[in-house]
Amino acid sequence: MRGVLSVFQPLSIVPELTQQGVVKGFFMSEIYITEQSKFFESGIRLDSGRILAPITLVYETYGQLNESRNNAILVEHAWTGDAHLAGKHSSAETKPGWWDAIVGPGRILDTDRYFIICSNVIGSCFGSTGPTSSNPKTGKRYNLTFPVITIRDMVRAQKLLIDSLGISRLHSVMGGSMGGMQALEWAIQYPDSIASAIVLAATPRPSPQAISLNAVARWAIYNDPTWRKGEYKHNPKDGLALARGIGHITFLSDESMNSKFGRRFSARDGQFDFFGQFEVERYLNYNGYNFVDRFDANSFLYLAKSLDLYDVAGGYESMAEAFGYVRAPIQFYSFSSDWLYPPYQTEEMVSCMKELGKDVEYHLITSAYGHDAFLLEHETFAPLVRSFLGRV
Amino acid sequence: MRGVLSVFQPLSIVPELTQQGVVKGFFMSEIYITEQSKFFESGIRLDSGRILAPITLVYETYGQLNESRNNAILVEHAWTGDAHLAGKHSSAETKPGWWDAIVGPGRILDTDRYFIICSNVIGSCFGSTGPTSSNPKTGKRYNLTFPVITIRDMVRAQKLLIDSLGISRLHSVMGGSMGGMQALEWAIQYPDSIASAIVLAATPRPSPQAISLNAVARWAIYNDPTWRKGEYKHNPKDGLALARGIGHITFLSDESMNSKFGRRFSARDGQFDFFGQFEVERYLNYNGYNFVDRFDANSFLYLAKSLDLYDVAGGYESMAEAFGYVRAPIQFYSFSSDWLYPPYQTEEMVSCMKELGKDVEYHLITSAYGHDAFLLEHETFAPLVRSFLGRV
Repeated sequence: MRGVLSVFQPLSIVPELTQQGVVKGFFMSEIYITEQSKFFESGIRLDSGRILAPITLVYETYGQLNESRNNAILVEHAWTGDAHLAGKHSSAETKPGWWDAIVGPGRILDTDRYFIICSNVIGSCFGSTGPTSSNPKTGKRYNLTFPVITIRDMVRAQKLLIDSLGISRLHSVMGGSMGGMQALEWAIQYPDSIASAIVLAATPRPSPQAISLNAVARWAIYNDPTWRKGEYKHNPKDGLALARGIGHITFLSDESMNSKFGRRFSARDGQFDFFGQFEVERYLNYNGYNFVDRFDANSFLYLAKSLDLYDVAGGYESMAEAFGYVRAPIQFYSFSSDWLYPPYQTEEMVSCMKELGKDVEYHLITSAYGHDAFLLEHETFAPLVRSFLGRV
Repeated sequence: MRGVLSVFQPLSIVPELTQQGVVKGFFMSEIYITEQSKFFESGIRLDSGRILAPITLVYETYGQLNESRNNAILVEHAWTGDAHLAGKHSSAETKPGWWDAIVGPGRILDTDRYFIICSNVIGSCFGSTGPTSSNPKTGKRYNLTFPVITIRDMVRAQKLLIDSLGISRLHSVMGGSMGGMQALEWAIQYPDSIASAIVLAATPRPSPQAISLNAVARWAIYNDPTWRKGEYKHNPKDGLALARGIGHITFLSDESMNSKFGRRFSARDGQFDFFGQFEVERYLNYNGYNFVDRFDANSFLYLAKSLDLYDVAGGYESMAEAFGYVRAPIQFYSFSSDWLYPPYQTEEMVSCMKELGKDVEYHLITSAYGHDAFLLEHETFAPLVRSFLGRV
C-alpha cells in the first residue's frame, strides 16, 4: 500500500437517498478510504540524541494532489487520535473518522480543492512506529525500551512523509491540542515548508497543573500490577481506564458537565449505597473501560510525556526567538471554557507574534465544551478557517 | 478524659525566647492541649434512616467557657482534618494543630475571650466513630459495613456534644470547605443554637466537575488490590497515595503551582528518562505517600462521599426554603483562584440570603492559593472575622 495516493474520488455534494429512503451523508458514499503507510529505513535522530530507525508512518489522504503539488493540507491528530481523519474504511464501520465533520466536498477542508493528509504520529499505537512496534534489534515489542519522543520528533518524522509524497510546501498544517503543538513546530522548524498554519486549543507549554493531571494519570497505570513496567500481554485495564477517566475530566468543563450530567445520581444506585455512583462517575468509568479496547497503555504514557515536555521555546533563548523563525501566517483558536490549555496561554503566543510583526490571526471562541471544543465547535470556526485558507 | 474542660491556660501574647535564643511562638508554651472525648450510647438516626450507635466524638478545647456559657465557638475541620486545631499535645510534636495560626490569645479566635471547640467528625479516623471503629454488633472493624453518612449527620452528632457541654447557643460556628458545609448546616438545622456562622471556601453543592475528581480518587483506591473492598490490614498505600495526589491538585491552583514548581524538572532525573519527573509530580507523589501514614482509606472514601452528596437544598423545595430557616448572621468567604468550589457557588448562596433579607456578609478574597487559601490567607481575613465576631 506504500505511497499509493488515496482512491477517494470527490462526490457531488447533493445528498442522496439510500435504499431505505433515508437521507445519507453525501460524504464517501460507496467509495471507502484506504489506510496507507510509508517505511523510512534510516529513521530520524530524536531530540534526545537517540536514533529511531526504521520508522513506519501510517496515514490517510482525501482529495487529489494537484499538478503543482501545492494544495496539500496536513491535519495533525491529538493525543489518542489516529490517521483515520474522515470517511470510513468499510461498510462495517459504524462511525466515520474523528474529524469527519470538517472534511469533504464543500466542507472546511474541501476535498474538491485540497489534498488532505493525516498521519498517525510516532509513539502512537495505530500503525506508526511506537512502543507496541517490534524493535528490530531484539525482535520483541519495544515497550519501555522505546525512546522518549517529543512533539518535534513527531514533526520530524512527518517531514519525511511529506517529502516522500513529493510535496515541498504544504498549503496548510492544522491541528488541535497536541495537533496544534505539531502545527506550531512545523511553522518554527520548517518555515519554508508551509504556507500557513491553523492552531486550535494548544499551548506554548503545558502548565504545572496540566502536567500534574497527566502525572496522576501515569501514576494510575504504574499502580496497576498487570502493567508490569510495560511488559504486559494484555493492556492493564484498571489502570488505563482510570488514567483515561482522569484525562476525560480535563477535556470537558464545569459547564459542559453541568448541562450533560448535573448532579444526577445513577438510576441503578441509591445515594446511600457505598458504591452508588453519580451519572458523571458512571460515564467516566464506562468511557475509561471502552478506551482500554482501543489504546495501548505504553503509548498513552509516551504521548503524555511528549505533551508534558512540550515547550515552544525549548532550545531557544525565548519564545520570541522561536517565533522569529516563522514565515507563514498562523491562525490561532482558543476556547473560553478550556481549562486544560486556557486561552491566556494561546494569547501569549499571539502577542509574541504580533510584537514580532508576524502575520497572526486570533479567535477566542465562546464555548461550554472545554478543551474538546476544538472538535465540536467546527460550525463556529468554519467560515473563519475558510477565509483564512482562501487568503494564504 | 470524658467531658473534662481543657487544661489550656491563656498565656501572654509577648513572644518569648527559647533557650536557643530563637523567638518562639507565643502560643501554648509549656502547657499542652489534651484530646478529650464523649460517648453517646444511643447515637443518632442518620439521613439514610439507619441508626449509628454508639457514637464517640473526639474533641479539643482552648480557652475557658464563661459563666453564661455564651462564648463558645465551634470550629469545623475539612475532609482530612482532625480535632487537633491548635497547640501541641506534647513537646514531641513538631507541628502545632492544623489552624494554629488563628487560635490563641490575641488571635482571631482569641482564647482570652472565647472558648474554642473543635470536634473530629463521624466517619473520620481520628478517634470519632468511623469505618475504623469497632462495630459493637460484631466486635470487628466496621470497614464497609459503616453506613453512608452526610454532612448533616456530622452536625447531628456535634449537636449531642455541644448539648453535653451545657452550651445551648454557640457564639459562632466556623469552618472552611467541608467545615464550611457543616457551618451552613448548623445555621439551617439548628437556627436557634448559633449566634453566627463563618463559612469559608464552601459550596451549596459540589459541581459535577468536583464530584468527578473525587470519583477518580475513589477509583484509584478501588483499583488497589490491597484495598480488598475495605477489608485490609494495612492501608492500601498505592491507591490511597494516588487518591490524595488527585485531591491535592484540586486544593492548589494553576497560579500557585506555577510559582511553587513552574515546569522545573526534578534534579535527579533527565527529561528523556521514561520515569523522569517534574517537580510538581514528585511533590504530589511524596505528599501522597506521606498521607498513607496518617489517614485511613475507608475514611477517605466515606468522607469523599459525604462531600459529593452535600446539597444545602437537599430535602427542601429550594435553596431559598433552606436558607429561610436561618436566623444567625452568616459571613461568607470565597477565594479567587479556588476552582474546586469557585466563588460563583458561594455567591449563589449570598444572593439567595440577600433576597430573603437575611443578615449576610460576603468577602471575595483575591488569592493565588486555590482552595487551600482558606487555611493560608488568615492575615487577610483576620480583621474581617474579628469585626464580624464583635458585632454578632
